[in-house]
Amino acid sequence: MQYDTLIYNVRIASMQHNAQPYGQLSESVVALLKGVIAGVFNADAIHSLSARTMIDGQQQWLLPGFIDCHTHLVYGGNRANEFEMRLQGVSYKDIALQGGGIKSTVEQTRRANEASLFKSAAKRARRLAEEGVTTIEVKSGYGLDNDTELRMLRVAKSLETQLPVRIATTFLGAHALPPEFADNADAYIDFVCDTVLPDVAHNNLADAVDVFCESIGFTTAQTEKVFKAAQQYGLPVKAHVEQLTDSKGAVLAAKYNALSVDHIEYLAESDIPHLAASGSVAVLLPGAFYYLHETQKPPVEALRQHNVPMAVATDLNPGSSPIASLLTAMNMACVLFALTPEEALRGGTLYAAKALGLSDRGEIKPGKLADLTLWDIESPAELVYTLNGHRPTRVFLGGQHV
Amino acid sequence: MQYDTLIYNVRIASMQHNAQPYGQLSESVVALLKGVIAGVFNADAIHSLSARTMIDGQQQWLLPGFIDCHTHLVYGGNRANEFEMRLQGVSYKDIALQGGGIKSTVEQTRRANEASLFKSAAKRARRLAEEGVTTIEVKSGYGLDNDTELRMLRVAKSLETQLPVRIATTFLGAHALPPEFADNADAYIDFVCDTVLPDVAHNNLADAVDVFCESIGFTTAQTEKVFKAAQQYGLPVKAHVEQLTDSKGAVLAAKYNALSVDHIEYLAESDIPHLAASGSVAVLLPGAFYYLHETQKPPVEALRQHNVPMAVATDLNPGSSPIASLLTAMNMACVLFALTPEEALRGGTLYAAKALGLSDRGEIKPGKLADLTLWDIESPAELVYTLNGHRPTRVFLGGQHV
Ligand SMILES: [Zn+2]
Ligand SMILES: [Zn+2]
Repeated sequence: MQYDTLIYNVRIASMQHNAQPYGQLSESVVALLKGVIAGVFNADAIHSLSARTMIDGQQQWLLPGFIDCHTHLVYGGNRANEFEMRLQGVSYKDIALQGGGIKSTVEQTRRANEASLFKSAAKRARRLAEEGVTTIEVKSGYGLDNDTELRMLRVAKSLETQLPVRIATTFLGAHALPPEFADNADAYIDFVCDTVLPDVAHNNLADAVDVFCESIGFTTAQTEKVFKAAQQYGLPVKAHVEQLTDSKGAVLAAKYNALSVDHIEYLAESDIPHLAASGSVAVLLPGAFYYLHETQKPPVEALRQHNVPMAVATDLNPGSSPIASLLTAMNMACVLFALTPEEALRGGTLYAAKALGLSDRGEIKPGKLADLTLWDIESPAELVYTLNGHRPTRVFLGGQHV
Repeated sequence: MQYDTLIYNVRIASMQHNAQPYGQLSESVVALLKGVIAGVFNADAIHSLSARTMIDGQQQWLLPGFIDCHTHLVYGGNRANEFEMRLQGVSYKDIALQGGGIKSTVEQTRRANEASLFKSAAKRARRLAEEGVTTIEVKSGYGLDNDTELRMLRVAKSLETQLPVRIATTFLGAHALPPEFADNADAYIDFVCDTVLPDVAHNNLADAVDVFCESIGFTTAQTEKVFKAAQQYGLPVKAHVEQLTDSKGAVLAAKYNALSVDHIEYLAESDIPHLAASGSVAVLLPGAFYYLHETQKPPVEALRQHNVPMAVATDLNPGSSPIASLLTAMNMACVLFALTPEEALRGGTLYAAKALGLSDRGEIKPGKLADLTLWDIESPAELVYTLNGHRPTRVFLGGQHV
C-alpha cells in the first residue's frame, strides 16, 4: 500500500468517543490517501508502511481541523463606531435612531459589491484559518433582499477557492426585518419562503436554513413557516433560539429535527429532552454573551446530563460578536460557561461537524477527511487555557499541507 | 536633509495629547532618521523631502508601537492542567495540596535552564510582537532565589537580541514566599533586599522594582522595606496593589513616587488623589479579572476625574492571565471595565510608556523612537472592537521595517 502521506511520531487527540480524554489514541501514525485518513497505526508499523511524504511529528499533538459552525462573516462595513459610541455613553436607542445596529450592516452589505464583500470576508476567514480552522459555516442575513442574500452566499462559497478552508453556507433570510417590510413580518416571511429560498435552493447556494427565532426576531409561527419551506427543498434547518428570552424556539426546532439550536442561554431545562430526542446539537456562542454583558448562562450541566452534544462557535459578526478566533470562543466557553477544555475542543471539532450535518469530518478516524492540525503543546488543554497562545505548526486540508 | 525613511499618505493616530481623538494629526508624512522620528509633515511637503526609502501608506493608519507594560512572560512549564482540573470540579484547595498554583511555576522555573526558559518566553513574546507590540516589560518573580531571579531577568533581556522588540525588566523578588522561607516572610524580605536586589542592581538587570502588596502577598511594611532598598540602588518602584483587597498599597506606592500601581480593583476613591499627586500610572489588568471571575471593577470613572493616566497590559502569566495579546487585554478593558477605545489604545501606548518611565516612546512626535505600526483599518477603534481581527501590515522598530 502506497500512501500519499504518513504523519508519524505524533500524539493523537482523535476527538472520537472512546474511554480516553480528547479521544486520545495509543497509535501514533496517521496515513493519508486521496484527501482522506486511510489508516491509523502503531509506532512500529512505520517500518512496513510507505508513502510519498513522511512527516516526523516530533511528539507534537495532532488534532482534527477546527470547525467554526456558526458565523456571519460576510458583511459590509463594520460597527466599531457603535462600539465606541456606546463606551462614550451614547444609549442603544440613540445609536438606533442614528441608523445603527443591524440596519447599518444591512445597508452597507447591500451597497457592497461581490469583490469588496469577498475582500473583507477573506481577511476574517484567514484569521480563523491561521488558528487551525479548516471548515467555516457562513450565514446570509444582512441582505434581506433577493439579490444581496444570494450575493452573500456566493461570496461565502467562493472563499474556499482562495483560502485553505471548506465552507458550509446557511441561508438566514429570516434574520431581521428589512425596511421594505417594516411592521409586516408575515409578508416578509412569505417573501423569504416564496421568493428568496426557492432561488437559493435552485442555485444550490445553501447547505441549511436558519431562522432568528426571538422576541426581537421572528415568532415560532413564522419560524415554522420557514422550516416547512426548507423541508420542501430538502434542506436541513437550524435556529437562533432562546438567546434573550425563552421563546420555545428549541422545542419547535427539535420537532423539525434541527441540526442545531444556537445561543440557548434561556433554554428551559424541561425542553432539553426534546433536543436529546431530535439529536440536535446545542451550539454555545459565548462571544455574544461577553460583548452584550449577558448574565444568563446556557444550562450546561443539564445539557450534559441529557447527553445533548454541545458545540462552540465564534458567531463572528459585526455587532454582538466581532471575534475572529475560535480558540478565543472555546476559552470563553470554559471561563464564562464552565465547559471543560475537552468539551470545548470537542465543541469545535466533533460536535461542530454534527451541528453542520457533516459526518465526514471532526475526528481522526479512517474514512474521515484528512483535515488535520499539528500543535507544539504538552496537552490539548493548553489550546483553550491561553488566549492567543498557540498557532498550529502545520495544517493539512484534504491531506495537503497548507 | 536626507532621511532614512519617509512614510507618506498615512492617517496618523499620534496618541499625543491634542484636541483630536487618538491624537490624530492633520499631517500625513513621517520622516525617520537614525531610529528616531525626525519630523512630521503635511502631504505636500513630500515633494521637497528626500529619503533612501519611501513608503506609501495607502491611507492606512499609523500608530506608535504598542507597549505591554506588565507581563510575567518568562516562566517554566504551564498551568493548563490546573485550569482543566478546576473546570472538572477540583477545588482550589485540592489543587494547592497537589502542589499547584504559583508554587508549581516556581518549581518548574527553578528547574528550567536558560535555553528552555528563553524558548518558551520567545514564543509568547512573538505572539505579542505579531500584534504590533514593540516594547515588553517582563518581571522576575518565579525564582524567589538568587540564581533563578537573575536567570529570569537575563532571559528577559536577551529576548531583544532575537526578536523585534525592546524589553524593560522589573525585579519582582517580592512576588510570593518561597518554600525555604515558609512562615517567615520578614526573613524573605530581608533576603530580597540584602542579597538578591544588590546582585540584580550590580548586574544592571532591572529597570524597576515591583512588589506584590496584597493580603495573600506582602504587607505594606514589607513592601516599604523593598521600596527603600530600591531607592538605595536608584531604581524606580511599582507595585501590584488592591487586586483582591484594599490593603492601602497604592497610597504607599504613591509616597515612593511609584511609576505605576497595578490591578487596583479595590482601590478606594479617596486614595486616588495620592496617585494624581505622585504621577503614578494606574495599570489595568482585565485579563486576571476575566480568568478569576472577579466582580469588583477598578474605579475607572474616579481615575478619569482625577486625571490619573490609565494603562492597560496583559499581565501575561501562567496562572491568572495566560493572555498573549495586548489587543485582547485592551478589548477586555473596554468590554469589562468600560474604557473607551481611545483610552484603551492610549493605555497601550502613551501611558504604558509612562508606566515604565520611558519618555522616549509611546507617541508619534519628533524626537521619539521610530517604533511604529501600520494598520489597514478605517478607524483606530476597530483594533479594540474586534478580537483577533487585525494584524499590522507593517511594523517599524527603531526605524527598521521588521
Ligand atoms: Zn448568529
Ligand atoms: Zn502581575
